[in-house]
Amino acid sequence: MQANMKIALAQLDYIIGDFECNRDKIKHAVREARSGGANMVVFSELAICGYPPRDFLDYGDFVVRCKEMVDSLLPESHDIAIVLGCPVINPVVEGKDLFNAAQVLHRGEVVYEYHKMLLPTYDVFDEYRYFEPGDQPGVFEFMGKRIAITICEDIWNIGNENPLYRECPMDLMKLHEPDIAINLSASPFSTVQAERRRSIVIENARRYGLSFFYVNQTGAQTELLFDGGSLVVAPSGTVVDELPYFQECIRVFDCSQIQLFSGDTSTVGGPTQEVDLIYQALICGIKGYFQKLGFKKAILGLSGGIDSAVCAVLATDALGPENVVGWGMPGPFSSDHSIRDAKQLAHNLGITWEEVSIDKVYHAYIDALVPHTQGKSFDVMEENLQARIRAMYLMAMGNKFGYVLLNTSNKSEAAVGYGTLYGDMCGGLSVIGDLYKTQVYALAAYLNREVERIPINSIVKPPSAELRPNQKDADSLPDYDTLDKLLEAYIEQCKGPAELIRMGFEEALVNRVLRMVNLNEFKRFQSPPVLRVSTKAFGSGRRLPIVGKYLF
Amino acid sequence: MQANMKIALAQLDYIIGDFECNRDKIKHAVREARSGGANMVVFSELAICGYPPRDFLDYGDFVVRCKEMVDSLLPESHDIAIVLGCPVINPVVEGKDLFNAAQVLHRGEVVYEYHKMLLPTYDVFDEYRYFEPGDQPGVFEFMGKRIAITICEDIWNIGNENPLYRECPMDLMKLHEPDIAINLSASPFSTVQAERRRSIVIENARRYGLSFFYVNQTGAQTELLFDGGSLVVAPSGTVVDELPYFQECIRVFDCSQIQLFSGDTSTVGGPTQEVDLIYQALICGIKGYFQKLGFKKAILGLSGGIDSAVCAVLATDALGPENVVGWGMPGPFSSDHSIRDAKQLAHNLGITWEEVSIDKVYHAYIDALVPHTQGKSFDVMEENLQARIRAMYLMAMGNKFGYVLLNTSNKSEAAVGYGTLYGDMCGGLSVIGDLYKTQVYALAAYLNREVERIPINSIVKPPSAELRPNQKDADSLPDYDTLDKLLEAYIEQCKGPAELIRMGFEEALVNRVLRMVNLNEFKRFQSPPVLRVSTKAFGSGRRLPIVGKYLF
Repeated sequence: MQANMKIALAQLDYIIGDFECNRDKIKHAVREARSGGANMVVFSELAICGYPPRDFLDYGDFVVRCKEMVDSLLPESHDIAIVLGCPVINPVVEGKDLFNAAQVLHRGEVVYEYHKMLLPTYDVFDEYRYFEPGDQPGVFEFMGKRIAITICEDIWNIGNENPLYRECPMDLMKLHEPDIAINLSASPFSTVQAERRRSIVIENARRYGLSFFYVNQTGAQTELLFDGGSLVVAPSGTVVDELPYFQECIRVFDCSQIQLFSGDTSTVGGPTQEVDLIYQALICGIKGYFQKLGFKKAILGLSGGIDSAVCAVLATDALGPENVVGWGMPGPFSSDHSIRDAKQLAHNLGITWEEVSIDKVYHAYIDALVPHTQGKSFDVMEENLQARIRAMYLMAMGNKFGYVLLNTSNKSEAAVGYGTLYGDMCGGLSVIGDLYKTQVYALAAYLNREVERIPINSIVKPPSAELRPNQKDADSLPDYDTLDKLLEAYIEQCKGPAELIRMGFEEALVNRVLRMVNLNEFKRFQSPPVLRVSTKAFGSGRRLPIVGKYLF
Repeated sequence: MQANMKIALAQLDYIIGDFECNRDKIKHAVREARSGGANMVVFSELAICGYPPRDFLDYGDFVVRCKEMVDSLLPESHDIAIVLGCPVINPVVEGKDLFNAAQVLHRGEVVYEYHKMLLPTYDVFDEYRYFEPGDQPGVFEFMGKRIAITICEDIWNIGNENPLYRECPMDLMKLHEPDIAINLSASPFSTVQAERRRSIVIENARRYGLSFFYVNQTGAQTELLFDGGSLVVAPSGTVVDELPYFQECIRVFDCSQIQLFSGDTSTVGGPTQEVDLIYQALICGIKGYFQKLGFKKAILGLSGGIDSAVCAVLATDALGPENVVGWGMPGPFSSDHSIRDAKQLAHNLGITWEEVSIDKVYHAYIDALVPHTQGKSFDVMEENLQARIRAMYLMAMGNKFGYVLLNTSNKSEAAVGYGTLYGDMCGGLSVIGDLYKTQVYALAAYLNREVERIPINSIVKPPSAELRPNQKDADSLPDYDTLDKLLEAYIEQCKGPAELIRMGFEEALVNRVLRMVNLNEFKRFQSPPVLRVSTKAFGSGRRLPIVGKYLF
């Protein structure tokens, strides 16, 4: 009698290019899966090197190292099948030199290899930059079962009125009459991703009548956050299990039980509230950046405003209060409440607080520069100087003590260029750069839901950069409710001016805002990496010409 | 009797997204071609919107505007065929939504449309991000001739032992028995590009026995420089004509004469000396950036060193001495000669010279920060502060007067992270960021070939950042001859450590340098755009993880 097959999903956090580390993680997970009785253990896409390796793939040496690591895992496969993602060389001279492959290791050999057929090349993805699409759909036989192995994008080209690809790999797999489907993914987080992921896996399971095992990567890769949420779905479309978000997890499933599953799944699934997902994602992003680069401590400027306050709370939760340093840097136009609120915040969080005036340095600059300004009056030069002195203070401390400066800009201001390049736009990592101002407010409320961590005054007062007397954001920007809706429609939904006006936005506002967005591409070009939580963040997923005259 | 066909090549400089401007340029060129007796005028790839439009292509509105511009050109086509590049909508729902098309306008209609088959997706190119590959090779009949129209990459997949694509469009075109071949290109400059371009067009002409008309874009698109150099090649493989580099040009050719051409072409072709090409490219890059963004004046710090000197000469030649402002900013560790050499340079070039000490601002910073540095001694904090104060001075003047700050970093220092983020790494445009230090020396010699524009002392003295007493580059870096060879092998040729050691580089040096390169990706991530002159510049053509542990 054929034994029941047990499959383990291994949802891990890899370090790109740290081969030994990844290999050892995989080895450890294989052992855990084995001791849990698994006959097969499945890892995510390109697990061996971490996703996305980007142009490291152009290095032959990098690809050789990947193969060496797989080879060194072969002895682990004597009594368990190991399914993992790895770049492999395309033996055909025509076409790109690599495939994005899934390899099955068993009894000390690579017994099956599949090449990803659909190569996402949009948004943050560049896979056709490196890989030749596979053209060998098929199944792999194991313990009497026919297993269809696909990789990430391969299962996403269904149920779409405007499919991105001409082919649907699972349709082709179906011709080989699989019993079970496995998908190796590296699918980054956005606030809508968990829901999309669940519905696409359910749809595949149902359409093809197969038990579906979906393994995602977890953890942060600079700006890209991987939320895990690996899935097991029964042929009925019932979600049998969902692995946790933003955590490593190894879990074993009995295939025969999955096959028949139609039970209650009301308790399956992680958080669905957007703000909760965002919070978890940003914590994961900060933690991953620091841990993987080997940094411990963060520094940030605390202005008394909501943006820096939210970032300080996130940094505190991610790194611990003992690893967060907040600087209050009053300047010539700072209000009393700005320092009071900032200090209160530091006190609430238990982080280090230091207060240093920028006045003397500011005046030293002005004294040095006045002979060269031809009597011109106070303008953006003096405003930017203040923001830049603050950044220089923080960078100085970063240099002295190995702190990483956290950037506290939000997406609304990055969009319209309301920030100082080499000033408040500095930092190693932008924490909330993918949150519109209105989302920052929502996150602040969430962070304060149990106790007032962010002083209420930082939340309720009108936003101001305080770079000249009585300045308010509202003096030069439309109200954030309107602005954010307009920006979201332009940036995330790619609506053009005519459509935006049809949506009800005023023509003058549309023209002004779109012009600001496009004109300020040069500033965003030099921004730090932005933790991505939306479907369209500034950064590698949005590539625009600096010198381009569209809509300005 | 069939009249002789005359074809005009229109090699123009477009502004991305400035539809009216591009349309009017095209219209003007059509009229010039017509008055030169042309029956057909050929423009470059995506001429209607300029290349590369990048994610503007995600905007439906952008694509509609392209179509509107083509429509508005139809009346111009009553007596001349207009061949131009334009994005068009893919009517098939499966696949990407756009094609990268060549359209033929004649007698007021679009009479033929070809879709680019090979979509470059490597280095600086992202075409599969936007376009579905075409699958309709064919010919277009005009004046009794069968014309094979291809777009850029389509003709590059030949004569290669390791072709990038499975198909060769010209092989497929050949089945339709063309008489003439036309290629619409947007092929950016590198020092080897003119030669590669010429040999690929020659090889195509010979292999298929066709007169080849190749039209390239010219002018700068931020970091990408297009050198023109459009070509007419006879079926014999003889180059009939090459249009000038980095200039707009419209020229008419008689097809019947090309057909038979086998004359002497020893005088055909632009400069081939690398340093001369680099000089022209950088001038084009500076001019294009300023003109297209509407800036007139540049500012830069003059340190007395070779890098800033070379940039100052280039800026002077591109913008005129009246539009270049040089600042000398002596600090606590500046040598006497640094200011003397810088001042002499400014005098030689006739540019504005201003001298402002950073000492008082530096001491103001130190006074403000000392209470927070826990008695730690002078280190990279104080070094970086000096570089940052200088950058803040220059940015201040930029803000006050609308100057663009030119970045003067070279590729060697950008590679190893020998530069201060938010200090000497600031700027709107990096002028020589794609030149290794040894290439900077060669360019300096070239600029001084007739008269000593750069003071000889700036060239011969040992390079130093002068950020601490008696500092020299050679204290912490290997000599530039060795370093640059190693960097070139690692960055341009993607050699891994084992190969580099086999090439003769010391193992310790290889490990140290590769580690520096990879570790400093976070700095380069925030660099200004770099004028690209090599086959692998830092920027959009080289995409690496910030948090990646390969080789460090």
